[in-house]
Amino acid sequence: MKSLAEKFKQTRRQTERLCEPLETEDYIPQPVDFASPPKWHLSHSTWFFEEMILKKFYKDYQIFHPDFSFLFNSYYQTVGERALRTERGVMTRPTVSEVYEYRKYVDEHIEKLLAGEMSQELQDLLTLGINHEQQHQELLITDLKHTLSYNPIHPVYSEGFNLTAQTNGKTGWLKIPEGIYEIGFEREGFHFDNEEGRHKVFLHSFEISEALVTNAEFLEFIEAGGYENFKFWLDEGWSWVNENHISAPLYWQKKDGEWFTFTLEGLQPLKGDHILTHISFYEAQAFAAWKGLRLPTEFEWEAAADQLDWGKRWEWTYSAYLPYPNFKIAEGAVGEYNGKFMISQMVLRGASTATPKGHERKTYRNFFHPKYRWQITGLRLVK
Amino acid sequence: MKSLAEKFKQTRRQTERLCEPLETEDYIPQPVDFASPPKWHLSHSTWFFEEMILKKFYKDYQIFHPDFSFLFNSYYQTVGERALRTERGVMTRPTVSEVYEYRKYVDEHIEKLLAGEMSQELQDLLTLGINHEQQHQELLITDLKHTLSYNPIHPVYSEGFNLTAQTNGKTGWLKIPEGIYEIGFEREGFHFDNEEGRHKVFLHSFEISEALVTNAEFLEFIEAGGYENFKFWLDEGWSWVNENHISAPLYWQKKDGEWFTFTLEGLQPLKGDHILTHISFYEAQAFAAWKGLRLPTEFEWEAAADQLDWGKRWEWTYSAYLPYPNFKIAEGAVGEYNGKFMISQMVLRGASTATPKGHERKTYRNFFHPKYRWQITGLRLVK
Amino acid sequence: MKSLAEKFKQTRRQTERLCEPLETEDYIPQPVDFASPPKWHLSHSTWFFEEMILKKFYKDYQIFHPDFSFLFNSYYQTVGERALRTERGVMTRPTVSEVYEYRKYVDEHIEKLLAGEMSQELQDLLTLGINHEQQHQELLITDLKHTLSYNPIHPVYSEGFNLTAQTNGKTGWLKIPEGIYEIGFEREGFHFDNEEGRHKVFLHSFEISEALVTNAEFLEFIEAGGYENFKFWLDEGWSWVNENHISAPLYWQKKDGEWFTFTLEGLQPLKGDHILTHISFYEAQAFAAWKGLRLPTEFEWEAAADQLDWGKRWEWTYSAYLPYPNFKIAEGAVGEYNGKFMISQMVLRGASTATPKGHERKTYRNFFHPKYRWQITGLRLVK
Amino acid sequence: MKSLAEKFKQTRRQTERLCEPLETEDYIPQPVDFASPPKWHLSHSTWFFEEMILKKFYKDYQIFHPDFSFLFNSYYQTVGERALRTERGVMTRPTVSEVYEYRKYVDEHIEKLLAGEMSQELQDLLTLGINHEQQHQELLITDLKHTLSYNPIHPVYSEGFNLTAQTNGKTGWLKIPEGIYEIGFEREGFHFDNEEGRHKVFLHSFEISEALVTNAEFLEFIEAGGYENFKFWLDEGWSWVNENHISAPLYWQKKDGEWFTFTLEGLQPLKGDHILTHISFYEAQAFAAWKGLRLPTEFEWEAAADQLDWGKRWEWTYSAYLPYPNFKIAEGAVGEYNGKFMISQMVLRGASTATPKGHERKTYRNFFHPKYRWQITGLRLVK
Repeated sequence: MKSLAEKFKQTRRQTERLCEPLETEDYIPQPVDFASPPKWHLSHSTWFFEEMILKKFYKDYQIFHPDFSFLFNSYYQTVGERALRTERGVMTRPTVSEVYEYRKYVDEHIEKLLAGEMSQELQDLLTLGINHEQQHQELLITDLKHTLSYNPIHPVYSEGFNLTAQTNGKTGWLKIPEGIYEIGFEREGFHFDNEEGRHKVFLHSFEISEALVTNAEFLEFIEAGGYENFKFWLDEGWSWVNENHISAPLYWQKKDGEWFTFTLEGLQPLKGDHILTHISFYEAQAFAAWKGLRLPTEFEWEAAADQLDWGKRWEWTYSAYLPYPNFKIAEGAVGEYNGKFMISQMVLRGASTATPKGHERKTYRNFFHPKYRWQITGLRLVK
Repeated sequence: MKSLAEKFKQTRRQTERLCEPLETEDYIPQPVDFASPPKWHLSHSTWFFEEMILKKFYKDYQIFHPDFSFLFNSYYQTVGERALRTERGVMTRPTVSEVYEYRKYVDEHIEKLLAGEMSQELQDLLTLGINHEQQHQELLITDLKHTLSYNPIHPVYSEGFNLTAQTNGKTGWLKIPEGIYEIGFEREGFHFDNEEGRHKVFLHSFEISEALVTNAEFLEFIEAGGYENFKFWLDEGWSWVNENHISAPLYWQKKDGEWFTFTLEGLQPLKGDHILTHISFYEAQAFAAWKGLRLPTEFEWEAAADQLDWGKRWEWTYSAYLPYPNFKIAEGAVGEYNGKFMISQMVLRGASTATPKGHERKTYRNFFHPKYRWQITGLRLVK
Repeated sequence: MKSLAEKFKQTRRQTERLCEPLETEDYIPQPVDFASPPKWHLSHSTWFFEEMILKKFYKDYQIFHPDFSFLFNSYYQTVGERALRTERGVMTRPTVSEVYEYRKYVDEHIEKLLAGEMSQELQDLLTLGINHEQQHQELLITDLKHTLSYNPIHPVYSEGFNLTAQTNGKTGWLKIPEGIYEIGFEREGFHFDNEEGRHKVFLHSFEISEALVTNAEFLEFIEAGGYENFKFWLDEGWSWVNENHISAPLYWQKKDGEWFTFTLEGLQPLKGDHILTHISFYEAQAFAAWKGLRLPTEFEWEAAADQLDWGKRWEWTYSAYLPYPNFKIAEGAVGEYNGKFMISQMVLRGASTATPKGHERKTYRNFFHPKYRWQITGLRLVK
Repeated sequence: MKSLAEKFKQTRRQTERLCEPLETEDYIPQPVDFASPPKWHLSHSTWFFEEMILKKFYKDYQIFHPDFSFLFNSYYQTVGERALRTERGVMTRPTVSEVYEYRKYVDEHIEKLLAGEMSQELQDLLTLGINHEQQHQELLITDLKHTLSYNPIHPVYSEGFNLTAQTNGKTGWLKIPEGIYEIGFEREGFHFDNEEGRHKVFLHSFEISEALVTNAEFLEFIEAGGYENFKFWLDEGWSWVNENHISAPLYWQKKDGEWFTFTLEGLQPLKGDHILTHISFYEAQAFAAWKGLRLPTEFEWEAAADQLDWGKRWEWTYSAYLPYPNFKIAEGAVGEYNGKFMISQMVLRGASTATPKGHERKTYRNFFHPKYRWQITGLRLVK
């Protein structure tokens, strides 16, 4: 097992490696309120280490700059803060190079701290900080893709780096028998509060697809008029399709009769055997309804996970993001972490090609509003 | 058991009895898109019998008026229809008395049909029509209350008719043991598609309150600053509170230091021992969080229901409105009934004082968006 | 000259005569915030006499009902009031018959007052009240047309009463020479504050059309693609066309290749020789640009008025509604009458077929936002 | 008189000089749709020379990059373009240094062209291009100030560069006699189409203030409750104040009882004797109404201009931006320049401290919607 110090360094380095192909300009924009600019991700994950660890455990710590705490804190709860959240793309100062200095300053102090004796509390907070930074690595690259996608000249992030070009390994149906299953985190090690409270659920038997749905399969749905027939759609999904004039997954576009998709390598021809991605829950559900099948619940997914090949897409489930029995909100700022989002969102299970290696877990509960598509989402069917 | 014919007549008569205290003017307005005017409820429930039964089973049936089918059909799925849905309050013609003639015409034809031999299919559709009309009775009276509440002169619907003045019978906590419970409709008789698919769930043990939360208890929450402290609220609930400047349940108002509430008997002093109502899911959840307790899931509620005194409030559960395992969408128009709403809504269990007698069932799954408060909602706590 | 008492009675009677064809239901809805329900017009014009005259001049006057003052006052300036303005269609009580009693009560008291000696101040206020009521007569009938137009069954207000079926009398161009012209009210008699401050303007010579634009002429514009070519439109007009999907004047619709228009006699075939109406300023301006001509200014219009046949349409001018030199805002509530609207609106001159006889004046300055079309508007060209 | 070639070079250099204090990050954001990022201003003004001049007059001209024409054209009229207009802040590529290369490339080609014989048409287009770039210099610096103002750490653009720290020279009232005045451009030289059509207007006598309103005077208005009293405000202005919670000019903030204002030198204490700026038309009009005075019309302003000290603020007039008599829209793209904005905007006369030297003219008609405040606006009173 890697030492915590090693893991810290690798994680921090990895975040910066993701930014290597960027121009200074790319660090700034925030086209939509649900995504954040690279500069903000770099700063906020650093602020977390300064605020939660250095201020408490590093003797006589001098903060890098008093303004940074104000600018890069995403938790402070006021109406003012909400406005700020939509204005991350307006903050041109501090500059990108000042942000890198901030990272360096905090890293050096954390590393000094890591060289000494560490209490369990400190180790736990460091582990949380590392996992927090990994979450932001995934958001950084998917938010960036979204920003670049607005540009009609289709910028290339990096040749050879294309997160969405995978095919399925296995096909067929996996049968899971009826019975009582244990759900939730059980092993030693890091996990989020929303996975806690291991508990029993009763599942009726079901069969789950070993493959994820592909672009070719989804094209059939499109060509069969799937987006124009309300009967496949949830009422809310049907409104979403019509109000937003949706007729294909995010980033798809048709030129002269051929389908293309915007990727981190620029605009690329769509490949039928690649695994479908960038779909909303509404589209996942409509596709399943069109097939006469359904999505798994998060409990079915977890019960089957050991036998599935997962980790290429965040897989939409037909489970709402709600507390497990005995879910407890932790005291203090950490308590704001997950529980307050437990309404109006759907659970996604698995992990995606943007998820940092080692960050994935079969008990991991990701969650988004059903309309969101900018993450690397996908779907698996159940019958 | 009452005959179906008798039940039909009583239900139709009851709808009209609810309208007896109304002035013609009251039949018209639709102040918000989620509610409908009395005239529309009277017409739409009638249209259902004409469209689903008379057109099919009554030989040589002549429809009452071709325009009515267009105006009072809530199902037809187009963008046009959506616009129409928000414009029910603009339709001054047909007049109220024409609508009563329409009811009379359809009733006479249905009664002739009921005098003859009835196939099972016809009986089933009649039963569905009766239950559909009962649903609209409840909406009619709660929608009407909402409309009257806008009027600064606080109109009285009917002296002595006050749906929200109940107190609790029992208090204390009911303990439910861990185990596998059967959920969903099982008996003979009418039920909606969303209750079907009786299935097993595993429940851990819990204790559920025998009493519903009262106005006095909720006033404590208000006085303790509950509406001003984000830590009790879901993130989405906190936005809702702030964007809508919410500081009390719907219809409450403070005048010269005293609390009042708008009722169907006009503005009345708030009574502390009356059962709380007209709260959103967000408020229910925040109250529970402030108490250090939680809401039941719909499965816990159903498992405990036989031992509870319920029926005074629609009780918010912390369950999202999702399909049961093996839920099947029926073919045809009936298939639009419930399944398409299975997203972004929360389940309410029980029934309210506005629910027609005999319409309630312990397996009944009512559902609303978490922000809605105009129904007679309430809450029960779990620990 | 009619006596003031006679004029009062006739005006009040005329308002009620306009309502004779109505059903009770028609008095209620307010589909858009810029229009008001008949019930509100009936009440508000009555409130004006009670508030401005009876309270001050009638010894020991007992107001009809304390709530009415609150409900039917359009002037009181608070945020609360603004909300109320959009909720006139929700106020089902007082009932229509109570409103007629209110009218009767106020009329009887005013008539007693009129039987005695009258100060000049009282005469002036009565004249203002009569003119105010005449303005509301015009709004009542045009607002009502708008409400009925939403109904897909095209209700008929009254057979034989069709305000928009006029043809032009004269054609050709009237030449007006360069020179200094006097603008604004000069005669004895009633006028609004916005016409005051008679002053000189210098006009260059121009020619003005003796005829108003007809439906046939506007159809040519439509058929020439006028609504699809941005170059004829003001930038703001082009946005308005696209955001609202405008492709014809208000109330026009095409069925099976034929044009119809909704009128107070229901849906009627469009007649080419009828004078065009229900157009926005944007449409008027685009039509003129397409013709290579322009709209008159309000000063040109007034200078030519004595030689023109006007009174069938409110004619859009290319003048903004701004104060005349030396415009003074009157003290008190009357001061709110006109001046506060002098921004972002365009002047219309003339009068329409909905304007009560005797209410029109060549110095009258009507004004609306350039987007509005529900009044009986039209246009005349200048070269 | 400077040669055209010299003027071209100086203008182009001046634009880049304005950008010298910028960090790369500052070139990117567009916080509001009415402002544009520096990168866009740099590119768009360059595109103008390439599109309108080089493509036509430079033999065998090779465009710099095909994408640039698409990205930096503000004129092309489609719904797509409108979306783009709000997304200028999302375009991270081309990079800032590529944009400077673009400028260099175009400048070199223009300078070669300037070295040869020039037709009158070419000279006219160059002059238009220079004036167009000057307009964008003014927008560049005022847009930039707006972007920086969002940053809670109050960035400094450049020490010693503060556009808004002027005091008045003269005070007192200038009397202008009644008479016919000639309005509009008459001299030789450059001017915009909206100034053309020199014509006569008749003006009644008036007195105009020699000084502009100061911060101290406006503070009196604030302290007298000016923002809370509807009677000083136009109806639309009163809505604007309340909906946007306006209580001071743009960029003002009160800290611990002291007023500060955000400037290009960061947050600075407010000086009472400095000339007021960053006010909307609504605020200018309300201030004048509170004083019992009024704003000048654009014609009064132009008639008085030769005797006034102007050029420190864009002065709001109470004239709508409408065509002069005989205004003609030019053929082609140039025709889109001004005429299409002649609705719902108010005229500002004079010039501001952000206006490039030599760009100002007494016949210049600037125009903005009455709500806008980010330009260096001010006001002068008339009695």
